[in-house]
Amino acid sequence: MDYFSGRISALIEQLSQLPGIGPKSAQRLAFYIVSQPEEKVKRLADSLLDARRNLHYCRECCTLTDSEICPICANPKRDKRTIMVVETPRDLAAYEKTGKYTGVYHVLHGAISPMLGIGPDDIRLKELMRRLEGDVKEVIIATNSSLEGETTAMYISKLIKPAGVKVTRIASGVPVGGDLENIDEITLLRALEGRTEL
Amino acid sequence: MDYFSGRISALIEQLSQLPGIGPKSAQRLAFYIVSQPEEKVKRLADSLLDARRNLHYCRECCTLTDSEICPICANPKRDKRTIMVVETPRDLAAYEKTGKYTGVYHVLHGAISPMLGIGPDDIRLKELMRRLEGDVKEVIIATNSSLEGETTAMYISKLIKPAGVKVTRIASGVPVGGDLENIDEITLLRALEGRTEL
Repeated sequence: MDYFSGRISALIEQLSQLPGIGPKSAQRLAFYIVSQPEEKVKRLADSLLDARRNLHYCRECCTLTDSEICPICANPKRDKRTIMVVETPRDLAAYEKTGKYTGVYHVLHGAISPMLGIGPDDIRLKELMRRLEGDVKEVIIATNSSLEGETTAMYISKLIKPAGVKVTRIASGVPVGGDLENIDEITLLRALEGRTEL
Repeated sequence: MDYFSGRISALIEQLSQLPGIGPKSAQRLAFYIVSQPEEKVKRLADSLLDARRNLHYCRECCTLTDSEICPICANPKRDKRTIMVVETPRDLAAYEKTGKYTGVYHVLHGAISPMLGIGPDDIRLKELMRRLEGDVKEVIIATNSSLEGETTAMYISKLIKPAGVKVTRIASGVPVGGDLENIDEITLLRALEGRTEL
């Protein structure tokens, strides 16, 4: 790309390393950025560094936060006896958007994957076990419905059950509004297995 | 989004203002960024600011560059007597990727659009006219095949022709590999009008 100047090539190169940003999008973003007022670009650059430098794991639930305890764990209205286990802060955000879940979370930051060499010690499981020493009524496992997510769910349930804590798994089935004909067979079978009486 | 900490919300907000980045992508990018080593995030932030602060228009062709004259205009092998007029540096990049064009460019940084209130004085037309005072053989108009691009092409050709310079327009038609049945009618008619003898 020597037809661009070194600086714009460098920026395109940096941007195209971000997930979901291909070379074309990186180019579009780069030219957009250099066309913006300097102060706006400075705000973006500062946000990046500021977020990176000041975020760490919540002491309770391990989600990313800039305070010692995240806003959810610090909220006295949340039911601390119900813990939903998720893989990432984005999964936490997805459930928070429903506005209906009143318990707290535990963010694993990954899932067990023998394929990728990610074992139980590589995710925040020890931190979850420590929380179970307190007063916990139910652990809801909301890892993804993927091979890794299922493996992790099985592993956690085996680990927790002996402690006498109720362990549940979110339902797997046909998404609301989903057209049966477009849904894969495994999901259809899961939906059948998980059928409930009306 | 008060379930995220202030800093991550701020970063998501900043990222979602970029073109083609929706709230979901912004969230994914933000969490990716904070999971990266600080030095890598610093490099990205520095690239952003460095590009913004040090890029300006090439004195010849108005593309974005960090030197006084861009690498293409500075290349003695390029034919300075053939000028291809494009709307943006990205269009320039698209033609450079073909590796076949040996002339130089002129970047307008936009197109005439009465709808958006963008007139001839708002794009780099004066700079093009100044270049025509030199020794120019042909001006190839490669603005987009949109309403604005066509308007701009017409305007430029009327402006240049009296100067006795040859003005051409890149062909409009069916893209290579394009399936006729999926191509819009206007393009099909253009392809018909522009047919060449075999």
